[in-house]
Amino acid sequence: MEWINRSKILIVGLGLMGGSYAKALKRLGYHVSAIDKDSGAVQYALDNSIIDAGSDEPDKELISEADTIIFALYPGIIAEWIKNNQSCFKSGIIITDVTGVKGAVVYDIQKILRDDVEFIAAHPMAGRELSGVENSDERIFREANYIVVPTDKNSQEAIEWCENLGRLLGFSNVSVLSPEEHDRMIAYVSQLTHCIAVSLMTCHDDERIADFTGDSFRDLTRIARINENMWTELFFMNREKLLAEMDAFVNEFQFLRQCIVDGDSEALKAKMRLSTDRRKAFDRKKSEKR
Amino acid sequence: MEWINRSKILIVGLGLMGGSYAKALKRLGYHVSAIDKDSGAVQYALDNSIIDAGSDEPDKELISEADTIIFALYPGIIAEWIKNNQSCFKSGIIITDVTGVKGAVVYDIQKILRDDVEFIAAHPMAGRELSGVENSDERIFREANYIVVPTDKNSQEAIEWCENLGRLLGFSNVSVLSPEEHDRMIAYVSQLTHCIAVSLMTCHDDERIADFTGDSFRDLTRIARINENMWTELFFMNREKLLAEMDAFVNEFQFLRQCIVDGDSEALKAKMRLSTDRRKAFDRKKSEKR
Repeated sequence: MEWINRSKILIVGLGLMGGSYAKALKRLGYHVSAIDKDSGAVQYALDNSIIDAGSDEPDKELISEADTIIFALYPGIIAEWIKNNQSCFKSGIIITDVTGVKGAVVYDIQKILRDDVEFIAAHPMAGRELSGVENSDERIFREANYIVVPTDKNSQEAIEWCENLGRLLGFSNVSVLSPEEHDRMIAYVSQLTHCIAVSLMTCHDDERIADFTGDSFRDLTRIARINENMWTELFFMNREKLLAEMDAFVNEFQFLRQCIVDGDSEALKAKMRLSTDRRKAFDRKKSEKR
Repeated sequence: MEWINRSKILIVGLGLMGGSYAKALKRLGYHVSAIDKDSGAVQYALDNSIIDAGSDEPDKELISEADTIIFALYPGIIAEWIKNNQSCFKSGIIITDVTGVKGAVVYDIQKILRDDVEFIAAHPMAGRELSGVENSDERIFREANYIVVPTDKNSQEAIEWCENLGRLLGFSNVSVLSPEEHDRMIAYVSQLTHCIAVSLMTCHDDERIADFTGDSFRDLTRIARINENMWTELFFMNREKLLAEMDAFVNEFQFLRQCIVDGDSEALKAKMRLSTDRRKAFDRKKSEKR
């Protein structure tokens, strides 16, 4: 278990996810430092003992003493940060990330990375409707999925190291997918659902709906509170796969619409039975897992 | 308060909703009887003291002694049941229902009803993903909406009586809407959301998704477990209004899609901000209400 020797962990980007990693890892006894250009976030984390050391700039000492670096930055700026600062990386370390899309991120990073450092991508599938280190909470990892996303450049050692990180953080389900499998899955279960929630929330202008909604509307729009900068970036970085899922969804939705126009109750009921069966199987899988 | 005199309540249709009404009303001290053609449901309710009396056919004695009748049948068969049995109704009673669409139901019932009996429509916006009296639970009414849906044939007395019924059952929010307002609202907040959930659950054939979903997919598909007979009937009975909401939703969804195709981050972020603001206002309203 490599983690015994990797006692100093540097987190780059101290938002909701970086802060939650810091809390989980510090509780496990690791020395956790953080770099974030927002000095308020760093100061908050120091004041609340979320981190042991921190800086609002790429501090050479913090970087060079790190046994592991976890990038919790917006996806578009990770490669640039590495390019600018990898000369300080300790030789032989493994680094990872928390990014929600992989194909557009992983290959670029692995291409520019020093040969004696290994980048293994990961996606912690957890979050909240709030952002910022002050809302960080390691309990969001419980009963959530952690996906390790290796390419053929990754070693078995790094893959296992990263799977172990997911378990240490408290994720109940740790899996391995290729970047392409990951991005197709995430386009469906996460990006498409956010597009649906936003559209549902904005397609109707009646201010009084809150007086009349049941649980179904509340459930479908919970994620309509959305960080527009992060999600726009994620959507654009996974454009082709997201568009394919959006089209598949609209096709299915328009099929239901046509059943209603035609009064085709048999076709409509068949879809509802399929939907019910799948959702039941899904509940069963979830309960088996716990 | 008319309820003091209306001590004998007959529930016609003893499924999830009829059973939940029975439990709530019996706990308040009313004499509750029920008629359901499923003798197993009636026997279950008797055995478990959910009702005081019951029959699997339109028993003349149960009907004629009722001070109030609550129809918890599928919407398409209520008018027929009334036509066949209203000769036994006690003169002067008020009757109501629990149906999820109103325009296609209320006027027909009021047209055929005896002049000395008043029908006031109501929609208890509560439910579960399970059906049947054995899953009934009056706690589903807490923090839920109860809509009274009068026409110009209804008296102020009946409207107030029905509002009071909603409060007695334990609903936290009791409102009054016209059948047209109700059906437009329900097309948006309930029927459209069910169409979305079914389409999302059936549009993608990957069996392994349950291993990788986060909360967002779980939330958006909870209602994909759906009673296909009831919802097909509800969709068809509210066809025009539902189709209008489906079209408004698809237009909005396709606008997002075009933003992603065009890389129009400003338009996409503007929609996300609108969505976030509306959902926040919605959360605020909900928390004020409690």
